[in-house]
Amino acid sequence: MSAFLFEIAAVDGKARTGQLVTPRGAIRTPAFMPVGTAATVKALYPEQVRQAGADIILGNTYHLMLRPGAERVQRLGGLHRFMRWDGPILTDSGGFQVWSLAQLRKMEEEGVTFKSHIDGTSHKLTPERSIEIQADLLGADISMQLDECTPFPCPRQEAESSMELSLRWAKRSKEAFGDREAQNLFGIVQGSTFEDLRQRSAQGLVETGFDGYAVGGLAVGEGFETMCEVLNYTVPELPHERPRYLMGVGKPIDLVEAVARGIDMFDCVMPTRSGRHGQAWSDYGPVNLKNAQFAEDSDPLDPAIDCPASRDYSKAYLHHLVRAGEYLAAMLLSWHNVAYYEHLMARMRAAIAKGEFDSFRRDFNDRWAEGRKSRAE
Amino acid sequence: MSAFLFEIAAVDGKARTGQLVTPRGAIRTPAFMPVGTAATVKALYPEQVRQAGADIILGNTYHLMLRPGAERVQRLGGLHRFMRWDGPILTDSGGFQVWSLAQLRKMEEEGVTFKSHIDGTSHKLTPERSIEIQADLLGADISMQLDECTPFPCPRQEAESSMELSLRWAKRSKEAFGDREAQNLFGIVQGSTFEDLRQRSAQGLVETGFDGYAVGGLAVGEGFETMCEVLNYTVPELPHERPRYLMGVGKPIDLVEAVARGIDMFDCVMPTRSGRHGQAWSDYGPVNLKNAQFAEDSDPLDPAIDCPASRDYSKAYLHHLVRAGEYLAAMLLSWHNVAYYEHLMARMRAAIAKGEFDSFRRDFNDRWAEGRKSRAE
Repeated sequence: MSAFLFEIAAVDGKARTGQLVTPRGAIRTPAFMPVGTAATVKALYPEQVRQAGADIILGNTYHLMLRPGAERVQRLGGLHRFMRWDGPILTDSGGFQVWSLAQLRKMEEEGVTFKSHIDGTSHKLTPERSIEIQADLLGADISMQLDECTPFPCPRQEAESSMELSLRWAKRSKEAFGDREAQNLFGIVQGSTFEDLRQRSAQGLVETGFDGYAVGGLAVGEGFETMCEVLNYTVPELPHERPRYLMGVGKPIDLVEAVARGIDMFDCVMPTRSGRHGQAWSDYGPVNLKNAQFAEDSDPLDPAIDCPASRDYSKAYLHHLVRAGEYLAAMLLSWHNVAYYEHLMARMRAAIAKGEFDSFRRDFNDRWAEGRKSRAE
Repeated sequence: MSAFLFEIAAVDGKARTGQLVTPRGAIRTPAFMPVGTAATVKALYPEQVRQAGADIILGNTYHLMLRPGAERVQRLGGLHRFMRWDGPILTDSGGFQVWSLAQLRKMEEEGVTFKSHIDGTSHKLTPERSIEIQADLLGADISMQLDECTPFPCPRQEAESSMELSLRWAKRSKEAFGDREAQNLFGIVQGSTFEDLRQRSAQGLVETGFDGYAVGGLAVGEGFETMCEVLNYTVPELPHERPRYLMGVGKPIDLVEAVARGIDMFDCVMPTRSGRHGQAWSDYGPVNLKNAQFAEDSDPLDPAIDCPASRDYSKAYLHHLVRAGEYLAAMLLSWHNVAYYEHLMARMRAAIAKGEFDSFRRDFNDRWAEGRKSRAE
């Protein structure tokens, strides 16, 4: 396996900044990956995603295998060409969506059989088929091993056997992936909220050897404190020299606290989903543009962010668009939110590089708490 | 009154090309105005509307007076600033939407009282209030007189009394509009499908004197042939030296045939509405991207149009986006459709300027008929 060059330029406490260098371009870390579920980052043009500061996006194996179909994407030149995104793409393995969206799942050692939430057709995902879809058919730059995601809370015995299954699938995924020059494969740590299970999972993955390591099974309802605790004992088990990816997280405060614990990569639907529901993210938390207080507010969302959606449109106009249910509301708020998330990552990278991450983190927590307090009033 | 300079650069048969010069920029004619109903051309950024070739857009008085409210728009700096469109804006009078959308209308000599389709609140539009909203509060570059629109078919007696009411409202509109340096007012010809009524309406308006003349009361179900016939006898009654505007029309073939009859300006929701329903316009008619035939078609919609939506995305990708119900489907198809409409206007202007409009029109009709035939097969 040829792991992408991962250059750590600066370390500040447990936080690190650097870049993961792929043939399709460098990913500045800590990195946030906007989610392009069905081959589109919802309500955004690919050029906007790039200009907002994203170096890499995430694609969903589950959605793409069902529609338009992985073989079809391949015949059309692969996912990058299909959706006009020439930067790196990370695909998930499909496991999480089978667990959260599909119906009538049947888990076996071999893999998982499920019915599509779109048309009820039957499909099977095995570690080998997931790699084939991600690496061969979609052409992902970074593929993820197939894993099983456990709910929260999860009985210890269930968490243990599921984690062990994910470990066996990790080995099969690596075997199926083989040796590729221009593509990487990440393993996924499971084990729910049990310290020893997380440690055994991490150690098993490191023994097998992956190009990067993800922490899975979080952001499933365990809450902020528990998530932080799991990171506290899981991240130290992961190799310093390879990228660490916290899957499906999260709110801005989650990102800051996870970076403080040594995480390098994130993905989350939050910025685009919130944008479709009239919300704009800020250091003070979410802002609901539908609120009457914005009806005649001629200020922009955030003039410090170099994005037209953040800088050039008034809150009064956004309020009107949200109230009127206009497409442009979702378009502008999704755009702002992605730009805000990417801007936040850039600010963290700069703070780490300057050795000022502690004070950045403290100030951010203050602003977040202030926002929470004012929303509660 | 200071009528905008209207320069007719070339005449070819009854078709004319030139420009209407407003303080916010020149409008190249024949012109197509994308419709920005609720202060947004649906699913498009204002920059895209401009880059697609639109010199002017239309705003809807009815929608804007109900939400966000005309006085609010004024407090926020007027419609141009509110929606970030710095080119000219024409507003309709609100009459057509009262007729087609509002409930419990009460028509009187004074004006029309109606209930909002949004929240049931009562509102009143008079010729004077319509001018106040359009010219004073929204700040339209071109305002339209308040008129009454008749259904099709319409008994002669009803068409006659309605046309006469619209004429009286035209005079009151002009009186209310007064003398403005940087804004214009257009009158609207009514009279349904009765030649003598249309002529009396046109003559009455010309006598009063307007900066431009619109043909109203069409595109209400009368059909292509009848629309052409009404234009045949109405347009010659309008002064050669002022712009002529066919309201609410239409399909590409309608535009070509109306230009051939001497029309200079158009507006229609068709390109954006079709775009939200998976349709792309072409010289051959509408193309339904949902059709299975496009599932693996890697060609773009129309590489001859200098617009990313027309040139850079494959039909296979658009097919996928439409099937998946993605925002980007409406965004790209609306963008292509507006660019196609504007490109069609540019082609007509060039053909008229070169004295080749007859052959352009013939070729266009051939392509349109070919498309209709192949869709019927």
